[in-house]
Formats: sequence, structure tokens, C-alpha cells
Amino acid sequence: MRVMGVDPGLTRCGVGVVEGAPGRRLSLVHVSVVRTAPGDEVALRLLGIETGIEALVDELRPDAVAVERVFAQHNVRTVMGTAQAAGVAMLVAARRGLPVALHTPSEAKAAVTGNGRADKAQVTRMVTRLLALDAPPTPADAADALALAICHVWRGGARDRLARAQKTRIEQAAEAERARLAARSRGGTSE
Amino acid sequence: MRVMGVDPGLTRCGVGVVEGAPGRRLSLVHVSVVRTAPGDEVALRLLGIETGIEALVDELRPDAVAVERVFAQHNVRTVMGTAQAAGVAMLVAARRGLPVALHTPSEAKAAVTGNGRADKAQVTRMVTRLLALDAPPTPADAADALALAICHVWRGGARDRLARAQKTRIEQAAEAERARLAARSRGGTSE
Repeated sequence: MRVMGVDPGLTRCGVGVVEGAPGRRLSLVHVSVVRTAPGDEVALRLLGIETGIEALVDELRPDAVAVERVFAQHNVRTVMGTAQAAGVAMLVAARRGLPVALHTPSEAKAAVTGNGRADKAQVTRMVTRLLALDAPPTPADAADALALAICHVWRGGARDRLARAQKTRIEQAAEAERARLAARSRGGTSE
Repeated sequence: MRVMGVDPGLTRCGVGVVEGAPGRRLSLVHVSVVRTAPGDEVALRLLGIETGIEALVDELRPDAVAVERVFAQHNVRTVMGTAQAAGVAMLVAARRGLPVALHTPSEAKAAVTGNGRADKAQVTRMVTRLLALDAPPTPADAADALALAICHVWRGGARDRLARAQKTRIEQAAEAERARLAARSRGGTSE
């Protein structure tokens, strides 16, 4: 299963694509940030985000798109733009007939670190390990997009009843994978 | 000058198109509501709004699109969907190279009634008079979209040159973005 995670934003929109399945190895397919100029008007910036994400979807052909759920309680100054960037990502996916999932930041953090309140450094560290990368993914602020994609892979899409029934099993697999990596890390071995 | 006003919403997105110029008679070109089913997932609803607005833009060929400015302080339960619907309207306009303007509900009400706090009945009454209609426009909840369009026509006189300059800039930027992405896509960006 190939999943595109989108960490929405008007100025920087993180895009991370990973491949994997619950209980199997994950691999990095792509990571980048779609940028738009803060000085431009919003309509133009949304067009830039659409063009950027659409090109990546067409090039990388994910099976699903996971977008960070935006809450009205967030930073009021930027939340409208963030919500609109998320909407554009959802729109692009729907236009290509791809299933769209929304995951909260806590869900994504909990999926990769086991802690819904993990900080950015912890998320980056675990994403780097889970994808077996030699170095943290760059650009650094795209780690959240990868965490979203990993979260979605481990939830197995969670779109049908079977997937929901397997959710516990998937969570156990994710937990086992995290434990395995943590043990390996404590042991000081690295690949 | 032909202006499309959009009163954004996920369930009902009002669209009103008027023709006129500051100090001249206004006329009604079109009024309707793009609806999406509350039971559908958001991505699909945004796609429905895009399809609906794009069809109207292509059919009615406005010179500009005026969208109601959405504030984070509004109804928290629906504000994210409203912001995303507004974003989709802006995106459709930008993709067609049309200038986009944002006006607040108060600006639109003040433009047609002289009172930024006018109620729905007052707005509908004035829109009906200004467009010289025999009866209030239907559907009734599209009156706000017409008020937005009228507001923009009247403000448009002073900003006409600015809008034309902006339009050229949007077209140039959209073209540059497409070229940039096409080049990047050819070069390959995946890791």
C-alpha cells in the first residue's frame, strides 16, 4: 500500500509518500514541501498548492491520501489558510478517485512514537528509524507528513469493516515494531 | 462588468452573477445554490462544489469572482467546511485566471442596504430592488451571493485597473507554475 501524507499549510505544505503494510517493513518513496509565497494572494497560493500536489499524485500514484485534520481551535491567524490548503489536498485526491483519510496530529504522533504528545524531534527520530533512513528526512518539516502516511499505512486504510476489525491487530503490530526498534536502538546496533 | 458572488458553504454554496458598473443599472445574470449531501465525506463534497462552480464559471464567464471572507470566530462546528468551500471557489477562479476578491458579510450588507448589520429580509428586499426583479430571487438563501456580487461591482469601479493588473499577474504566475512543475516532473523529484 502506497500512502501520501499531507501536512497542510499555505506557506509550506509537507508531502510524504511511504510504502508498506501493517506488520511489514516501511519504505520511503518521496518527501518534499510544496511552498507558496506569503506575499501572494490566497487564491494564487491555493492554485500553487493544487498544482504541486496534483503533479506529485500523478507522478507517484499513491493508493490513498492521508491529510492532517485541522481544528478551528488552532492558531486563529493561520487556521483558515491551513484549512483551505487541506481542502485543496482532499479535492485533488477526490478528483483522482483516491480515498482520503483525516488523522489528527495526536494520532500520527501516537502511531510513530507511541505518544500522542511527542515533540518534533521524537517524531523525526522515529520516522527516520521506521523508514530505515541513514539521516533524518529533509526538508525537516516534512517529517509530519511522513508520520501521517505511516499512521495511515498502519491503520490499513481503516476504510472498511474488515480493516476496522483488524485495527487492534494492526495496533499490536505497530506496537511490536516500535518495541523492536526501541530495543535495537538501546542495544546500539544500527543498519 | 460581470461579477460572480459566492456565499460559501459545504451543504449550500450560493452563487449569484450580476452585470453592471458603478452608477449604472445592475442586472441579474444568474442565481443558484450548489448543494452537496451532508452524509458524504468532505473530500467528495469539495469535489461537488468544484464541479458545480467550475461549470457555472465556464457557462457564465464572469470577469471577477467575489467570495465571502470567512472568519475563524464564526460557528466552530461548520467554519472549517465553510473555509474549505471558499477555498475551492477561489481556486476555481484562479485556475481560470480570474481576479478574486474577498468581502466580509458586513461589507456586502452595507453595500446594498447602507447598513452593515442589516438582516436577511432587508438584504433580500434591496437586492430585489437593485436588480429590478418582479419577485425576490430564489432560492432565497442565494440573496447573500448576489449582495456580494453587487458589492464588488460597486467597489470594482475604483479597482478596475488594479484587478486587470492582478489578473495578468495571476495568469503569468499560473503559467510559470505549470512550466516549473512540468520541468520538475520531467527531471524527477523522488528519492
